Amino acid sequence: MTVTNHTLSHFQKVREFTMELVEPLCTEDYVVQASPDVSPPKWHMAHTTWFFETFILKKYKDKYEDFHPDYHYLFNSYYETVGSFYPRPQRGLLSRPTVLDIQTYREHVDRQMIELLETAEGEELRHIGELVELGLHHERQHQELLLTDIKYNFSINPLQPVYDQQRKEEKALLQPKTDFHEIEGGLVEIGHDEKGFSFDNERPVHKVWLEPYCLASHPVTNGEFLEFIEDGGYEKPEYWLSDGWSVVKEASWHAPLYWEKENETWYSFTLSGKREIAWDEPVCHVSFYEADAFARWAGKRLPTEAEWEHAMKTEAVTGNFAEERIFHPVAAPPRDTRFSQAFGDVWEWTGSPYASYPGHRPLEGSLGEYNAKFMSNQLVLRGGSCVSAADHIRLTYRNFFHPEKRWQFSGFRLAEGVEQS
Amino acid sequence: MTVTNHTLSHFQKVREFTMELVEPLCTEDYVVQASPDVSPPKWHMAHTTWFFETFILKKYKDKYEDFHPDYHYLFNSYYETVGSFYPRPQRGLLSRPTVLDIQTYREHVDRQMIELLETAEGEELRHIGELVELGLHHERQHQELLLTDIKYNFSINPLQPVYDQQRKEEKALLQPKTDFHEIEGGLVEIGHDEKGFSFDNERPVHKVWLEPYCLASHPVTNGEFLEFIEDGGYEKPEYWLSDGWSVVKEASWHAPLYWEKENETWYSFTLSGKREIAWDEPVCHVSFYEADAFARWAGKRLPTEAEWEHAMKTEAVTGNFAEERIFHPVAAPPRDTRFSQAFGDVWEWTGSPYASYPGHRPLEGSLGEYNAKFMSNQLVLRGGSCVSAADHIRLTYRNFFHPEKRWQFSGFRLAEGVEQS
Amino acid sequence: MTVTNHTLSHFQKVREFTMELVEPLCTEDYVVQASPDVSPPKWHMAHTTWFFETFILKKYKDKYEDFHPDYHYLFNSYYETVGSFYPRPQRGLLSRPTVLDIQTYREHVDRQMIELLETAEGEELRHIGELVELGLHHERQHQELLLTDIKYNFSINPLQPVYDQQRKEEKALLQPKTDFHEIEGGLVEIGHDEKGFSFDNERPVHKVWLEPYCLASHPVTNGEFLEFIEDGGYEKPEYWLSDGWSVVKEASWHAPLYWEKENETWYSFTLSGKREIAWDEPVCHVSFYEADAFARWAGKRLPTEAEWEHAMKTEAVTGNFAEERIFHPVAAPPRDTRFSQAFGDVWEWTGSPYASYPGHRPLEGSLGEYNAKFMSNQLVLRGGSCVSAADHIRLTYRNFFHPEKRWQFSGFRLAEGVEQS
Amino acid sequence: MTVTNHTLSHFQKVREFTMELVEPLCTEDYVVQASPDVSPPKWHMAHTTWFFETFILKKYKDKYEDFHPDYHYLFNSYYETVGSFYPRPQRGLLSRPTVLDIQTYREHVDRQMIELLETAEGEELRHIGELVELGLHHERQHQELLLTDIKYNFSINPLQPVYDQQRKEEKALLQPKTDFHEIEGGLVEIGHDEKGFSFDNERPVHKVWLEPYCLASHPVTNGEFLEFIEDGGYEKPEYWLSDGWSVVKEASWHAPLYWEKENETWYSFTLSGKREIAWDEPVCHVSFYEADAFARWAGKRLPTEAEWEHAMKTEAVTGNFAEERIFHPVAAPPRDTRFSQAFGDVWEWTGSPYASYPGHRPLEGSLGEYNAKFMSNQLVLRGGSCVSAADHIRLTYRNFFHPEKRWQFSGFRLAEGVEQS
Repeated sequence: MTVTNHTLSHFQKVREFTMELVEPLCTEDYVVQASPDVSPPKWHMAHTTWFFETFILKKYKDKYEDFHPDYHYLFNSYYETVGSFYPRPQRGLLSRPTVLDIQTYREHVDRQMIELLETAEGEELRHIGELVELGLHHERQHQELLLTDIKYNFSINPLQPVYDQQRKEEKALLQPKTDFHEIEGGLVEIGHDEKGFSFDNERPVHKVWLEPYCLASHPVTNGEFLEFIEDGGYEKPEYWLSDGWSVVKEASWHAPLYWEKENETWYSFTLSGKREIAWDEPVCHVSFYEADAFARWAGKRLPTEAEWEHAMKTEAVTGNFAEERIFHPVAAPPRDTRFSQAFGDVWEWTGSPYASYPGHRPLEGSLGEYNAKFMSNQLVLRGGSCVSAADHIRLTYRNFFHPEKRWQFSGFRLAEGVEQS
Repeated sequence: MTVTNHTLSHFQKVREFTMELVEPLCTEDYVVQASPDVSPPKWHMAHTTWFFETFILKKYKDKYEDFHPDYHYLFNSYYETVGSFYPRPQRGLLSRPTVLDIQTYREHVDRQMIELLETAEGEELRHIGELVELGLHHERQHQELLLTDIKYNFSINPLQPVYDQQRKEEKALLQPKTDFHEIEGGLVEIGHDEKGFSFDNERPVHKVWLEPYCLASHPVTNGEFLEFIEDGGYEKPEYWLSDGWSVVKEASWHAPLYWEKENETWYSFTLSGKREIAWDEPVCHVSFYEADAFARWAGKRLPTEAEWEHAMKTEAVTGNFAEERIFHPVAAPPRDTRFSQAFGDVWEWTGSPYASYPGHRPLEGSLGEYNAKFMSNQLVLRGGSCVSAADHIRLTYRNFFHPEKRWQFSGFRLAEGVEQS
Repeated sequence: MTVTNHTLSHFQKVREFTMELVEPLCTEDYVVQASPDVSPPKWHMAHTTWFFETFILKKYKDKYEDFHPDYHYLFNSYYETVGSFYPRPQRGLLSRPTVLDIQTYREHVDRQMIELLETAEGEELRHIGELVELGLHHERQHQELLLTDIKYNFSINPLQPVYDQQRKEEKALLQPKTDFHEIEGGLVEIGHDEKGFSFDNERPVHKVWLEPYCLASHPVTNGEFLEFIEDGGYEKPEYWLSDGWSVVKEASWHAPLYWEKENETWYSFTLSGKREIAWDEPVCHVSFYEADAFARWAGKRLPTEAEWEHAMKTEAVTGNFAEERIFHPVAAPPRDTRFSQAFGDVWEWTGSPYASYPGHRPLEGSLGEYNAKFMSNQLVLRGGSCVSAADHIRLTYRNFFHPEKRWQFSGFRLAEGVEQS
Repeated sequence: MTVTNHTLSHFQKVREFTMELVEPLCTEDYVVQASPDVSPPKWHMAHTTWFFETFILKKYKDKYEDFHPDYHYLFNSYYETVGSFYPRPQRGLLSRPTVLDIQTYREHVDRQMIELLETAEGEELRHIGELVELGLHHERQHQELLLTDIKYNFSINPLQPVYDQQRKEEKALLQPKTDFHEIEGGLVEIGHDEKGFSFDNERPVHKVWLEPYCLASHPVTNGEFLEFIEDGGYEKPEYWLSDGWSVVKEASWHAPLYWEKENETWYSFTLSGKREIAWDEPVCHVSFYEADAFARWAGKRLPTEAEWEHAMKTEAVTGNFAEERIFHPVAAPPRDTRFSQAFGDVWEWTGSPYASYPGHRPLEGSLGEYNAKFMSNQLVLRGGSCVSAADHIRLTYRNFFHPEKRWQFSGFRLAEGVEQS
């Protein structure tokens, strides 16, 4: 009974947060898709709804009928085993269903879900509860994507629209010096212990051998990254992985995404519009290739995900998350833990290719496609960002993107080995 | 004075017709661009307005200031000599300015234009009057594009939206047999005599030598085109121009655009939704390559534009135009002229590459880009279509498109030579 | 009998000339294909042979068997109606058959052809004779392509190989001033009268109305073209057709093909290697778009093909052809005709899209594909070039290429209208 | 002194083996490049020579001058820090330098190298010796590529040339049943101990924790792979990684590279020409995606590279290598070790992304580009193949390719976890 109450209120809270996030948009903003990586906001609103309809209502709700015969095709993202789907790069070509149609769809599914939660019982309720929890974490991921995608859509518009005018003005802080803290290593354990929610890709707990290493107290800042730029970092192939160097030349990268230099001043596009870059903030919107090149330039390296997780075990999962409604990384506050900004602000690229943990078991059925099929050509990021919801992030959370992607709020923290004597 | 009155009322009538045409759209429909060939409806609304602002208000209106500093960049289509412009294939990526913003822009420019027309005098008024007329014919062209582009945008949407439910149901008519009327030829004159409005590309009147020829009494119908399809027309390279055959294979063409076969029945997508094909209607949405291949299959050829114009001199410029609000070609009514449907219904591809007439003089200044710079790789079409405004079409009107384009309401009429003895 | 003798000796002469042209090549040079437009030299050698085998030996030679079962597929160029063919852009991926294999193929087919010509009689012999003539003119076309293609292949090689060291050094001549000669026009006749060989696309003779016009005494020279470059011709869109301007920007054109500026000196790559540009020579390796843009810059235009042919009727078909073995256009010699260099030196772009003449009949059967299917998107060039064989060129000869092509020896001559009073 | 003698004879032996491998080619075969992945044989001959010239002769040979001023540009493969290089995908467009030119280049550099080795002394000799060893292992790699590339070039030629007629006919053997041998795991060590030659990417020896696992006694055979095909393996997305499934659809994969079905019989193209597939041979020319999909279909997985190396420690490094001149994987002979065909026959894909070992140090200077810059988006393969030289392969050898590549002799072996109780 309390399970239901908790699930119900969690369901309503998360579903409402999606609607809060789109509140500042004009109708036209819901439609566009400025690159194949992003999706139109109305698509995110419908797809997260489709998830509940497909994996819960159609299986557990008596005599449930599809809200609309075409929505299964239109709002399936990539689940090959539940049917075909509308091509991702063309999501921005569809004016219909309208925003209103999709709001109606959301309301319909919400009502049905609530009814189901209020009537299901026993083992079935337990199983539905697990799926609801998965669906809500899924919606949390799309809430983050909503913000990253709106930011990208707005950024390419010559009118440079503002998503949220009322951004809190953070004070200019004196960024504390970056230290490297040594960590002993040895045979350690990482992974999720199945107390509370986790994705299948975080499981099981398993042993990893770590040589002693040092990890930076802070993520790399804009100011530090500027040194790399000014030292010709984007012009010197010796710092770059071969595939990364190809991207640099083809895409003419010369700074992080959203950076622009005008009359000797650097600006960055943010969800509050274009603003002068604050040098103490963590660098953001860099690809793995840029993070890796910076590390090589600095004579350091990126940590592995095991090193990151092992080191951060003692840090509290708090920070600049979406609930702050800043939607931008801020300079590190002075505090007395070893590692600042482990959580929130920016996702941190690790040097670890995204692969399954030893003994990993994907979810059964179509939901097995949720994580496992992406385990190639991607790198793991850790710690959440300023557009992640606080209740969505854990120590063991593994995010993953292809190494050339930059539209996420992605930064990084340096590591290095310990000279053995 | 009467000039002003006439111009004023013409201005208001044409500008209002644009707004009537978009009336059935939802806000979301104004935003999308389903192929690089089409433009979002809100772009057409803004671009036609930009035309008056750029070529008239900024030159003749005292102290006129741009409505918005970025609109010149956003809504210039292709006039290189007035400045740079936002890339055409990316017009659908912009949610802002909103539809409301653009309506406000239209109203502002309309007010300024009316004020200007009411106050200008003498030679200046005459010159403004000419430019207004050009701007209104320009807007007529975009009214046609609005409809062709909405049709395309809707057609690729799995929901198959309907633009105009209330389409008049035409009666199934007994299509009269197609005759070939012989025309003597000789040294004839074609081109516009500069009485009334014409585009520069229709001028001057000039002599052309025509051998005797025959021209079909009717455009080719869907039923006739079906015979070509069923005879394997799309599989036999011998009917096709080499460049056309490449397109057929690459794009997997097997019927006109919007045709689809389901369970042995052929359907076509129209502005009133998907409907069964009426075989007596003129075939529509075919490329030049398809028209040319059909002609070769039929043992005929396409007429030259001179042959077409010379033959149609005696036909009245009436027919199924946009004002009928059918927005679809209809079967030829029985009538007692030699050539049916010369005007309206479908644009007719000719075999003539689009080139300047002898002695042609492009407009001066930036408006010289209006027509002249497109004189390569395109073919001339004649006669207007069911989405052209009636007052926009003339005997001498030269429309032109690249030979592979099919999203216009384009059909064709056959010709053949006369065996000389 | 004399027909046979003439045909035989013509056959041997033309076939041998192909082998003379490849004589300076290394084995490796026969294999490569540096762009989809060009073909490997060994492919030209085989394809011209395949033409005789396919259209003559297989039809007229008793019990003739294919020399090799795969050659029909490998060496058919584009005749869809005689079977499928190996994709053109991949011709350079095939090391086999070797050059030696292809020489053996040529010798085999030559022997069989000679035997056939020596034994055929009567009507059959006459028909074979016509096909042989067609095949030899076809081989003449490929001899020209051999040279244009070798030039292109060599030009992209950083080692800049030399095809023919022994190029005659032409004297620096004082280029006579370009005059514009007025021509009356009226109702004139152009086209081939079927006395002697012609391609089907030159027929029939037909009437054309020409307004009075002026035609330049000389093709445009390198020096004149340099003025266009130095006046920013490649940076100013107002001179360019829209499709041409797209190519200029995409391909970063800033001078004719093979031109390169080093330390303030302009060089051009030639079949004799890289040499300083001689300013009195006709400009060469320009596209239609460049010719057209130059003309607009100069306040002139290109002649139509009818204007060109009508004007050149009085000029002798002599000039700098392939037999001179210069393989490069030379400065105009002083001479006392109205029009210099009408024939040889450079092909002259006209403003006429390539289309069929009124009453044109393509060849029957598969040979109908020879010319007719290319009648879209191409422009007519006239007069032959320094790599055309002298006996291949006629007043009425129509060459044709897409407007962006530059690897042919293509230049142009200006025209203008006559102010009527 | 003996060091020199050993180095000298090794140098001569390896350099000669390259020439032996190209011996069956025609001149034309040296030139072509049938895909961007492969290089023309003459390029491999020149590039391996350039390696000695660039990294040894130019540094250690007194007054050494470049053999040719352009060869540094033409034959540098990818070393950004030693200068620019000719674009890889265009290597097949160059007919010059000729094969003879490159043979002369090889002979020149060989003479200079021998002279250098005979005269150098002390510390310098030791350092040169190390570089020579690196250069020879580099040449070994290109000898393998020579064969893989010739195979690919020949395979796309409709004439299906044969590289080596005299392939030994292996007897049809009764393939022993595949067993899964259990291995205990724990904290093990892998990596090269620096006794003898190794690449930097194999170093240093380091600890890895392995859970208990099982490894297959044999690589997967053609017969086993056929079952996957016949069970619809290439049509069912559930077996595939997401990126892999995209490739399957785009490239229309339905069997390993070089497999072709004709009249119900499966054939494969080999260096001895097209032959019927022998079902007991290890499957070859599969991508990582195919190996991984097969494993998922079979309910197993690929081993990690640590699992592979730890298990194979007890196996002798012998097998079907290039010296056998079979150039094709053969059925496993009966033998009494736990793991058959660990070395030779086919490279075995592992599930390990290619990354640096903890404590890895790249080579200094430009040679640091040799391995380190490829550490993204590639997977490790182990064990060598039938086209690897025997003296080139070690237990610790790490080969790596992008997951979609198939033109290498790549197969795989299955693993699985051990159910813990």
